[in-house]
Amino acid sequence: MNKDRPLILVTNDDGITAPGIRTLIEVMNEIGEVWVVAPDSPQSGMGHAITVNETLYVDRIIVDPDAPQKEYSCSGTPVDCVKLATNELLKRKPDLCVSGINHGSNSSINVIYSGTMSAAVEAGTVGIPSIGFSLLDYSLEADFSHVKSYVKTLAIQALNHGMPKGVVLNVNFPKQNASGIKGMKVCRQANAHWIENFDKRTNPLGRDYYWLTGDFVNEDKGEDTDEWALKHGFVSIVPVQFDLTAHHAIKDINTWDL
Amino acid sequence: MNKDRPLILVTNDDGITAPGIRTLIEVMNEIGEVWVVAPDSPQSGMGHAITVNETLYVDRIIVDPDAPQKEYSCSGTPVDCVKLATNELLKRKPDLCVSGINHGSNSSINVIYSGTMSAAVEAGTVGIPSIGFSLLDYSLEADFSHVKSYVKTLAIQALNHGMPKGVVLNVNFPKQNASGIKGMKVCRQANAHWIENFDKRTNPLGRDYYWLTGDFVNEDKGEDTDEWALKHGFVSIVPVQFDLTAHHAIKDINTWDL
Repeated sequence: MNKDRPLILVTNDDGITAPGIRTLIEVMNEIGEVWVVAPDSPQSGMGHAITVNETLYVDRIIVDPDAPQKEYSCSGTPVDCVKLATNELLKRKPDLCVSGINHGSNSSINVIYSGTMSAAVEAGTVGIPSIGFSLLDYSLEADFSHVKSYVKTLAIQALNHGMPKGVVLNVNFPKQNASGIKGMKVCRQANAHWIENFDKRTNPLGRDYYWLTGDFVNEDKGEDTDEWALKHGFVSIVPVQFDLTAHHAIKDINTWDL
Repeated sequence: MNKDRPLILVTNDDGITAPGIRTLIEVMNEIGEVWVVAPDSPQSGMGHAITVNETLYVDRIIVDPDAPQKEYSCSGTPVDCVKLATNELLKRKPDLCVSGINHGSNSSINVIYSGTMSAAVEAGTVGIPSIGFSLLDYSLEADFSHVKSYVKTLAIQALNHGMPKGVVLNVNFPKQNASGIKGMKVCRQANAHWIENFDKRTNPLGRDYYWLTGDFVNEDKGEDTDEWALKHGFVSIVPVQFDLTAHHAIKDINTWDL
């Protein structure tokens, strides 16, 4: 790595024009040479989807002619963006990949549905230090001002330390409140899940359809979880791995009559 | 659970008419009461995507009027199918969810891109014993005859034993060959990744576009991996978890200057 001028890939899942990625670009421009490769439209909930049966388009775009970063918008998913960036668009392997800042939480089980985090994970699979950032505010007018210094600190620390092998970071920020953020906490993912309440309607042609809506259920009261940290005003940092093997369960399954 | 007549949810990512899911339905009909809720079109590579900005349609379909199973085709992703099945369509929580049989490998890092496995994981998040099955043959004319007995054994064992908490199974089958399958092996996910070779073309209007293609790179020579097992003619069984926390890395990150 050129420590004076690290190469930083920025992506997200809310689309290249979302305020969250604009904040992330602004902060990364203070640290290194920034290349943005992000979806041309919102891709929330895309998880680790890739585009295998359709073509991908990429356009060089200029959002601000005076800004230093290079920007590309892509017709694919967040993971497609990272693959295109690292294999086709960037001149070399980036020193850091940052994804977000997502408009809405990616804490706990939300990590598995999150395009923001899947983009970060994709970069991690090819050995790029990588962080996904999310703010617990779904609004497009969300205020990101209180998180900038934390984003900068974490990016610099990741550049300085590198990342443990096979690990990326899932960082969530509480919404701004009067008392401010209390600090950062390294946490485990809370053991929570969703229970869906589908909203069933009938379209003008008389055909039923559904909207997916649900309730987040967290029965994990551990004070070492991301949910606890966020509820108590801390930034949550969960080290996330993409070796999904439940090593502890191998012994169990070996007792089966196979 | 009613052990005489367990309720089994069947889904996949290749779409409800794919030969792989037809084989799975056939085997499950020997074990219990089968409800099929699967995508109306191929959804390969959809990972854990959910449909949040569009509506979902569900249709009761009858593929074979003499068959005992109930079948629904859904306009959404594999994960949407599981959510709709468990929260809206099925009369009670199923005793087992099986997904597949996928046309193509979901071993190693492929687990994170796989709609087949994400459907299984989704069922796991709400406590349903769940298994994703895949065959290392992408062809739509793939021969599934040699895997039926293994599918049945695994489903029965999962019903009898239940699943370790927070775990689902990722089962991959080698292609049929003259010597047959050598047995089943409980494994860890091989530490492999993809390097993409985008196929860049120009459309009739002169605009460049890309097809995603890539090479699978496995530098993990461990004999306890799924890749090793499959290469040597065994069925690979990887217990997969959806708590993505890299617990071992918490200590590392806590040494950062945060």
